[in-house]
Amino acid sequence: MSQDPLVIFTPSGKRGHFPVGTPILTAARQLGVDLDSVCGGRGICSKCQITPSFGEFPKHGVTVSEDALSEWNKVEQRYDDIRGLPKGRRLGCQATVQGDVVVDVPPESQVHKQVVRKRAEARDITLDPVVKLFYVEVEEPDMHEPSGDLERLVIALEEQWEIKGVRADLHILSTLQPCLRKGEWKVTVAVHLGDEENPPRIMHVWPGYHEGAVYGMAVDLGSTTIAAHLCDMTTGDVVASSGLMNPQIRFGEDLMSRVSYSMMNSDGAQEMTDAVREGMDALFTQIAADAEIDKHLIMDVVVVCNPVMHHLFLGIDPFELGQAPFALATSDALRLRATDVDLTIHPLARLYMLPCIAGHVGADAAAVALSEAPDKSDDLVLVVDVGTNAEILLGDKNGVLACSSPTGPAFEGAQISSGQRAAPGAIERVEIDPVTKEPRFRVIGSDLWSDEEGFDAATAVTGVTGICGSGIIEAIAEMRMAGLVDAGGLIGSSEQTGTDRCFADGRTNAYRLWDGNEDQKPITVTNADIRAIQMAKAALYSGARLLMDKREVDHVDRVVLAGAFGAHISAKHAMVLGMIPDCELDKVTSAGNAAGTGARIALLNRAARAEIEDTVRKITKIETAVEEKFQEHFVNASAMPNSSDPFPILRSVVQLPDPSFNTGGGDEDGGGRRRRRRRG
Amino acid sequence: MSQDPLVIFTPSGKRGHFPVGTPILTAARQLGVDLDSVCGGRGICSKCQITPSFGEFPKHGVTVSEDALSEWNKVEQRYDDIRGLPKGRRLGCQATVQGDVVVDVPPESQVHKQVVRKRAEARDITLDPVVKLFYVEVEEPDMHEPSGDLERLVIALEEQWEIKGVRADLHILSTLQPCLRKGEWKVTVAVHLGDEENPPRIMHVWPGYHEGAVYGMAVDLGSTTIAAHLCDMTTGDVVASSGLMNPQIRFGEDLMSRVSYSMMNSDGAQEMTDAVREGMDALFTQIAADAEIDKHLIMDVVVVCNPVMHHLFLGIDPFELGQAPFALATSDALRLRATDVDLTIHPLARLYMLPCIAGHVGADAAAVALSEAPDKSDDLVLVVDVGTNAEILLGDKNGVLACSSPTGPAFEGAQISSGQRAAPGAIERVEIDPVTKEPRFRVIGSDLWSDEEGFDAATAVTGVTGICGSGIIEAIAEMRMAGLVDAGGLIGSSEQTGTDRCFADGRTNAYRLWDGNEDQKPITVTNADIRAIQMAKAALYSGARLLMDKREVDHVDRVVLAGAFGAHISAKHAMVLGMIPDCELDKVTSAGNAAGTGARIALLNRAARAEIEDTVRKITKIETAVEEKFQEHFVNASAMPNSSDPFPILRSVVQLPDPSFNTGGGDEDGGGRRRRRRRG
Repeated sequence: MSQDPLVIFTPSGKRGHFPVGTPILTAARQLGVDLDSVCGGRGICSKCQITPSFGEFPKHGVTVSEDALSEWNKVEQRYDDIRGLPKGRRLGCQATVQGDVVVDVPPESQVHKQVVRKRAEARDITLDPVVKLFYVEVEEPDMHEPSGDLERLVIALEEQWEIKGVRADLHILSTLQPCLRKGEWKVTVAVHLGDEENPPRIMHVWPGYHEGAVYGMAVDLGSTTIAAHLCDMTTGDVVASSGLMNPQIRFGEDLMSRVSYSMMNSDGAQEMTDAVREGMDALFTQIAADAEIDKHLIMDVVVVCNPVMHHLFLGIDPFELGQAPFALATSDALRLRATDVDLTIHPLARLYMLPCIAGHVGADAAAVALSEAPDKSDDLVLVVDVGTNAEILLGDKNGVLACSSPTGPAFEGAQISSGQRAAPGAIERVEIDPVTKEPRFRVIGSDLWSDEEGFDAATAVTGVTGICGSGIIEAIAEMRMAGLVDAGGLIGSSEQTGTDRCFADGRTNAYRLWDGNEDQKPITVTNADIRAIQMAKAALYSGARLLMDKREVDHVDRVVLAGAFGAHISAKHAMVLGMIPDCELDKVTSAGNAAGTGARIALLNRAARAEIEDTVRKITKIETAVEEKFQEHFVNASAMPNSSDPFPILRSVVQLPDPSFNTGGGDEDGGGRRRRRRRG
Repeated sequence: MSQDPLVIFTPSGKRGHFPVGTPILTAARQLGVDLDSVCGGRGICSKCQITPSFGEFPKHGVTVSEDALSEWNKVEQRYDDIRGLPKGRRLGCQATVQGDVVVDVPPESQVHKQVVRKRAEARDITLDPVVKLFYVEVEEPDMHEPSGDLERLVIALEEQWEIKGVRADLHILSTLQPCLRKGEWKVTVAVHLGDEENPPRIMHVWPGYHEGAVYGMAVDLGSTTIAAHLCDMTTGDVVASSGLMNPQIRFGEDLMSRVSYSMMNSDGAQEMTDAVREGMDALFTQIAADAEIDKHLIMDVVVVCNPVMHHLFLGIDPFELGQAPFALATSDALRLRATDVDLTIHPLARLYMLPCIAGHVGADAAAVALSEAPDKSDDLVLVVDVGTNAEILLGDKNGVLACSSPTGPAFEGAQISSGQRAAPGAIERVEIDPVTKEPRFRVIGSDLWSDEEGFDAATAVTGVTGICGSGIIEAIAEMRMAGLVDAGGLIGSSEQTGTDRCFADGRTNAYRLWDGNEDQKPITVTNADIRAIQMAKAALYSGARLLMDKREVDHVDRVVLAGAFGAHISAKHAMVLGMIPDCELDKVTSAGNAAGTGARIALLNRAARAEIEDTVRKITKIETAVEEKFQEHFVNASAMPNSSDPFPILRSVVQLPDPSFNTGGGDEDGGGRRRRRRRG
C-alpha cells in the first residue's frame, strides 16, 4: 500500500490518513472530531463508542472491507460480557485502523452533544457544562522527590487532560489520600473548569473509574413559585422538575408588599432571605429524592429571578429597589458558592446568577434574552415575559432594548371579580356569538365547550369556579368583537346591546358569562374587571411602544410571548385587546418558560454565561417610570385596541364594531395613574 | 523664570521640574517617590505629610527660599486645628510648588515603610501587605444608565486607585448600599489585593473616610505552643503577641503520639483538628482583647507549622505522615478563607499557609528559610531549627538543601532524669572547674552563680528545681571538658575522676551537680541523661553532615541556631558536644523564633509569599530515613564531639581531655537504633 488508510468520520465529514494500527480515538482527536472519553483511552469508560460502516461509499469515494478495523480485542470482549456493547458498536480507543474505513460517531458518544429543544425557531443547546468528569492515573509518592498527593493529581490532570492550574479546597484535601490509595492511584475527578473569576477546581474525587453522573439545577425563582429542573450534566437531560410556592408569599403576595415588609420590620429582609433559601433547599432535596439521586451530586446551580427576589435571595435588603433611582446593589452576574446561600447540596457546589439588566429588569429577563436570543434575530422581534411585572425586549442583530412595565396581577386572575389562578374549573377559553351575544366557554380540565353535550357531566367534579387570566382576556376580547363593550372599555346596557346578559351593576354594567347552578354562583365580567385588564394591558403595550419609539419603528416583525401565562393566551384575543402591537397573527408565538430555559442553557453550556453577560452589557435599558411618552402611550393604550395606533393587520382579519357606551362620567384614567406607583 | 521650579525628594534623591502650583503629592507620584495617601489627595487622610527644608543645599545645588511652597491653606489649617500637624510638616496634597524646594518624606509617610529587624545580618522587611485601605468617591446611581452600586464602586477603585477587576462577596453586598448612602458616596474600602489564585476582593467598606488600622496575625503553630503576633498592617508594628499551650497536648505530648491517637480513634483526627482550631481562635480573641482592638479587624492570617500540625490544623488525617513514603496530602502554599478553619475574626479574612518542603520538613522550616534567607547568603550557612524534630537547611546563593532529623524531646528537658521545661528554678548555665571538678550554675530567675553570695536568698522562692535544655547541654559539655565523661559518653567513677561528685548509679556512674537541701532533692546528671542527649545531638549532627556530604563540603562558614531553644544554648558547649559542625565560635549566631519571623514577613510583604514558594521549589530535599550514610554519621556523632570528624577549630580554643571509662559493656548504639523510627 503506497498510502496510509483513509479514515472518514460521520456526521462531521472529517477525514485523514492514519498508519495501520492507529486507534480510532487517536485519529478522532487528531482530526478534532467530537468523540467523548472519560478514561482517556484506557478502555474503561466506553464513552468513545463508534459504529464502523462497511461496503461501497461512492459519496466518500471509498470501499470499506470487513477487516478495515482490528478484530475485537479482550478489552472490548470483557466490556461486552459485563455491560453489553450495542450491536455494530466498537470502542474507539481499542479498534485500530487496518484499512480505509467510514466511522460514525453516534450522538451519545459526542462530547458536545446537542440538547434538542422542541421549538423550531429555538437554537439547540450544545452540551458543555462547567463541571465534568475525568479519569486520571496519578504518580505514587516518592520520598526522594517529596511532593503532595494533591500536587501529583494536579500534574496528572494537566498532563492527561490539559487542565491547567486546578485548585482544591480543604474538603478535597481531607478525603484525597484514602481515595488515591483505595483506587490504587487511579481516580475519577469531577472538575469545575473555572470561569472569569475562578481557576479550575476539583469538586469531587472517586477511587478508580467512577461510573455515574453529576448533576446541576436550573432554577427560575419567581415571586410566586420556585421552579427547578434537575439536569444530568453528562447527558444534558432534565431528570426531574418540580415547583414550590415561594415561602415568601406569607410576607406579601407581590414584591412591593415584601419590600414594605422589610422596611417595616427590622429583621424582615433576613426573615424573607431565610424563607426563600429554606424553600429552595427543600425543593432541591425533594427533586433529588424524586429522581432517586444523592443530592450531594448536585454540583452546579443556575438561578434566574427578578431584581427584588435576586436581592432577597442573596441577603441584600431590597429597600433601594422600592424607590427611584431603583439602584441595584449589584447588577453583574454572580459566581458564588452554594453554601453562601445555605444550599445543602455538594459542599463545593457553585451557584451562578445571571446578570440583572436594570433595577426593574432582572436576571429572569436576561435568561429570556439568552433563550430567545433577540440579539441574534434577523427580523425585529418583541419578546414579552408577562407576569405581575412585564419584562419587554425589542431588538434584532442590530441591537436590543429592554424595559419593564408594572402590569400588576390582573393577568393572573387577581383583581378580577370572578378571577382565579389557572386551575381545574377555571374558564380558560371563551367565544361570544356576535349576533346572539350568547357565550360559550371551556374550563380547565375538560375539552368540551359549555354548549356541547356532556359538558355538565364532564365538569361535575371541578365545577365552573371562576375565570383565569387567559379566560378573562378571551372574554373581554370576545365582548369587544361582539359589540358588548366599546373601545373605551364600557359595557353596554341591556338596551344598548340587545341582550339581557348585560345588566346594570351599580353605576356601570356587567356581562353574565355563566348562569351558575344550585352549587355555584353565576360568573360575570364586570366593568371593573375590564378596567383592571385595561390598566394591565395598557402598561404592557406602552412599555413595548416606548421601545418601538426608541428604535424608531411603528411595527414589529414578530412577537414572542414568554412565561406560563404567555403560553396560554390567544394571539388574536391579546391583539384585539391591544396588549401587543399589531402583527401577523402567525408571527405571534409562545416560548413557554423562557426564563427557565435560559437558566438551563446557562447550566449546560458554560460559554452561554459569558455570552449573556456580554449581551446584557450591550442592551439599551429604558426606565419607563421617567419617560415622558410613557404616560401618553398609556392613555392611548387604555382603549381597546388603542386610541392612537390603528392596528391595520388585526382589522384586516377581525371585525371590530365601534359602539360607544360612554354616558359622560367614568374614571378611565384615574385608575391608571394610581397604579403607576406599583412595581414588581 | 526660564524653567519650572526644581523639586528634590529625600531620602530617595529623586528630582524633577514641575510647574508652579503643582501639589507635592502629584510631583511625588510622577517621579515614583514613595509617598503614602489613602484619600487620593483630598486632604482627608494626612498620610502624605512631608517636611520641606529651606536654605542652602550645596549638595543638591539649590537654594530654597521661605516661600518655595504655597502658604498654609484652609485644609491644612483645619487638619492642624483638629488633629495637630507636627511642627515643620505640610500635607503633600495641599502644599504646592512655588520655587525650588527640597522635600523630605518621613518614614511614616512612605507606603513601603521598612520594618526594621533588630539583628544586623537580617534584612529589613518592606511593608507591603496584601490588605490595604483606599478612600474612594463613587458615582451616584442613574436610572437612565442603570448599574449596580457595587459595579460603580469597582469602577471607582479602578479609576482612582488602578485596582483592576476587584470582586465582592455576599457579605459586602449586604452592607454596601447603606454604607454608600451614609458616606454620601464616599467610602473607605479595605481591599485584599489578590494573589496567584484570587482576584482582588473587597474586605470591608466604611462610610466616608475611615481613620484606623487593619490587622493581620502571624502564627507559629508548634506541637507544644501556639504563638501569635498581632500586626498593624498599616504600620507593620507588632501590636501584641501571646502564646497558648497547643490544646492537642492532651492527645499526645509529641507528634507521633498524636498520629497514633488518630489511628486508634475513628474521630481522633477530627477531635485534634477541632482542638487546635478552637485554641487558635481563643488565642486570637485574647490577643485582640489585650490590644483593645475589634478582632473583626483582623483580615489576614499567616500560619507556619510542621507537616503533622499542618494536616491536623487543616482537617487532614496525618496517617500517611506516620509511615514511608511520608506523603503529604498537599505540599504547596495554601490560600484559604479563615472561616475554612473556624476562625471567628473578620468574616472574609484570608489565611495563608507557607508551603511544606517535604513530609518531615514543614512550613515552619520554609518560614525559617524566608527569615534567614540561606538562598541569598554569600557564604555557606547551616540553619538549624531545634525542636523535637530538627529542621536543617544548608546553602548559599548557589543552592539550598534541607532535611529533618528526629532529635526527640531531650533538648527540651524531657527524658532527662532532672529535666524540666525552661522555667524559674531551672538550671540554665553550668561551669565545672577542670581541676577541682566542682560545679557552679545559674538558675532561671537569678543572675547570681550558685557560688556567689546571696544565691540562696535569690533563689529562695523558685528553688533549684531541675535542669532545662540549655542547662543539660552546658552540664554535659563542662563534664566532657573537665574529664568527667569520656568521648563515648561514659561518666567516670569516683576513683577514675578523683571526685566524689561522681558516684555509682547502678551499672554506670552519675555526677551530682547540686547537693539539694531540706526542701529539694539533689540534682544529678546520670549516664542515661548523657545517652539521651547523645542520641539527640547525633541525630541533629548527622542530618547536617548528610547535607554537607550532598553539598560535598566538610566545613560550613557559619551556623544559625533558630528556635527558642537555639536562642539559649551556648555555641561553645553545643560544639563540644558535637551538636553542630566545627566552625568559628563567633560565626554561630542565634536567630530567635525565625519561624515566627518568617510568618510575619509573609504577613507584611505579599511579594515574600511568591518568593518563598519559589525558594521552596528550588530546595533540594533529602530524606534522612533512607540515606545509607545517615546511620554511619549517626554512629560517629554519638561520640562527643565526634569519632570521625576532627573539629580542629573547636580544639584550637578548647581543651578536650581524652580519658576512657569504658569497661567493656555498654549499649552505645542500641538506643540510637531504637530511636530511628521516632519522627516528629
